[in-house]
Amino acid sequence: MTMSDNRKLGIAVAQMGPVHLADDRKAVVARLVEMLKEAAARGARLVVFPELALTTFFPRYWMSEEEAEERFFEHAMPNAHVQPLFDLAKSLGVGFYLGYAERTAGGERFNTSILVDASGNIVSKYRKIHLPGHSDHKVDAPFQHLEKKFFQVGDAGLPVVEAFDTRVGMCLCNDRRWPETWRMMSLQSAEVGVLGYNTPSLNIHWNEPVHLRMSTHLISLQASAYQNAMWIAAAAKCGSEDGHHMIGGSVIVAPTGEIAARTVTEEDEVIVANADLSLVEGFREHVFNFAKHRRPEHYHLIVERVGAGEPLPLKNI
Amino acid sequence: MTMSDNRKLGIAVAQMGPVHLADDRKAVVARLVEMLKEAAARGARLVVFPELALTTFFPRYWMSEEEAEERFFEHAMPNAHVQPLFDLAKSLGVGFYLGYAERTAGGERFNTSILVDASGNIVSKYRKIHLPGHSDHKVDAPFQHLEKKFFQVGDAGLPVVEAFDTRVGMCLCNDRRWPETWRMMSLQSAEVGVLGYNTPSLNIHWNEPVHLRMSTHLISLQASAYQNAMWIAAAAKCGSEDGHHMIGGSVIVAPTGEIAARTVTEEDEVIVANADLSLVEGFREHVFNFAKHRRPEHYHLIVERVGAGEPLPLKNI
Repeated sequence: MTMSDNRKLGIAVAQMGPVHLADDRKAVVARLVEMLKEAAARGARLVVFPELALTTFFPRYWMSEEEAEERFFEHAMPNAHVQPLFDLAKSLGVGFYLGYAERTAGGERFNTSILVDASGNIVSKYRKIHLPGHSDHKVDAPFQHLEKKFFQVGDAGLPVVEAFDTRVGMCLCNDRRWPETWRMMSLQSAEVGVLGYNTPSLNIHWNEPVHLRMSTHLISLQASAYQNAMWIAAAAKCGSEDGHHMIGGSVIVAPTGEIAARTVTEEDEVIVANADLSLVEGFREHVFNFAKHRRPEHYHLIVERVGAGEPLPLKNI
Repeated sequence: MTMSDNRKLGIAVAQMGPVHLADDRKAVVARLVEMLKEAAARGARLVVFPELALTTFFPRYWMSEEEAEERFFEHAMPNAHVQPLFDLAKSLGVGFYLGYAERTAGGERFNTSILVDASGNIVSKYRKIHLPGHSDHKVDAPFQHLEKKFFQVGDAGLPVVEAFDTRVGMCLCNDRRWPETWRMMSLQSAEVGVLGYNTPSLNIHWNEPVHLRMSTHLISLQASAYQNAMWIAAAAKCGSEDGHHMIGGSVIVAPTGEIAARTVTEEDEVIVANADLSLVEGFREHVFNFAKHRRPEHYHLIVERVGAGEPLPLKNI
């Protein structure tokens, strides 16, 4: 593999420690501003913030949609609260990725993220497709996971946009566990994938061992970065939000599947990698030369079926 | 997660050390017979052998198709050489998975594997889809990787068959690096995936660091087992075949993404796990409840495109 100086991108992940119910957006944006400054000073041109970065992870609380809209959704982007972040990014010539709860003019609600370029312009928007959790009130659970109640399924696909002299694919949290997410990006020639997440340390649905929350997060990102020959930058909101703990483990993963940088706290923490994009080219020319090696004629169930079904009839036996 | 006694399957992986050019099939089958005995004695009901298990990994040598057919392909299965393995399996009530080079009556050549049940019947056949390497003679390379010369692309899809009181999906070597392989299995409700491989330690196509051959093998299997909620049993042929080294690292991976058993040599070596199939059900009821969470309407490029292309037009921006 050859390292090429002219195909490098400084990428930062700005992990966030907890945002409590009592923390207002002004205080939160001040934390993002501080991390953007640090990331820029350390050579980043793109800074990745978490999913639903501006508030606590409110889908854990049972409330009406109207109350959630009022307290936790953004009705415009940018808005007065986040304007300082846009202004600073523009003045520093740094772009960023940011997740927030979007309430549209038409009254729709999405778990959304935006990519903002170094001029402070929103160049792409993503609305989360793989919504985990439930929509009913689980009264016996220690907390809720109401993404299926508060959000509609995204209507904008898995977007890839030309920016930062490369191509960037966008996704959020649970999307990372579905290989289709990253494949849709690499089939659009994305070289960098950005991800924000809030992952409760406790799975309320069944007695999954707690340590698997971290290990399955990491192997999913490592395998996806390798199998799609992409850099992946993943930012957690983590630590204990009003007593509800979420995993950290924010990482920047190389197309080798190796973790190039990783957070070591559950607080606000910036990690940076000078990502060599020529690594992408190397893997895509050889083992993952899709045009030479993929066989879509044998993949049809991936789009024909939603859930699992019966085995197909056997051939040649 | 609940361990259930009545949904367990004893799975063995029978890794093979090198098979040299001078080793005849009789000697090779004697080694398979020994490992089958050991596996059965250790509680296995299904024994997984490697890809192209009966000969050396001959695609590394330049020769004519006719010569390869003569020396390295099976013209019938079973045949006199492998009959002792079929007989022993039947008498022990143990099934097995075996890879070999198949020459059909019609003159076609495939990189093939079969699943044999505890009665000694072939219940499914797979013909490899993702053929790596090249078809031309790379005269400057230290060895060849001529799967695209000697084999046709498989014509039988990615089969899943009901056997061993579960459903088993079959694949070979390079297939494991393509997430579509495992997804096609899980969409057919496979609970166990079986894999044989021959993976050269040196990538002749470009200067990929050698250690990545093992790490990318492992993360691919771990992520695929987790993301498809399957047990995966993977058997290497490994060590130095006439001076050409191949990786070992045979594993049995649980639906948690954890390595439940792993070889520690590059020789003939049997590993066994008593695989709890109820783990599959747990993951498929919750995080990987496909019917609830998959969004095939957003996956269309996976079957529409072979190679990567331009980004789709952006929506909602």
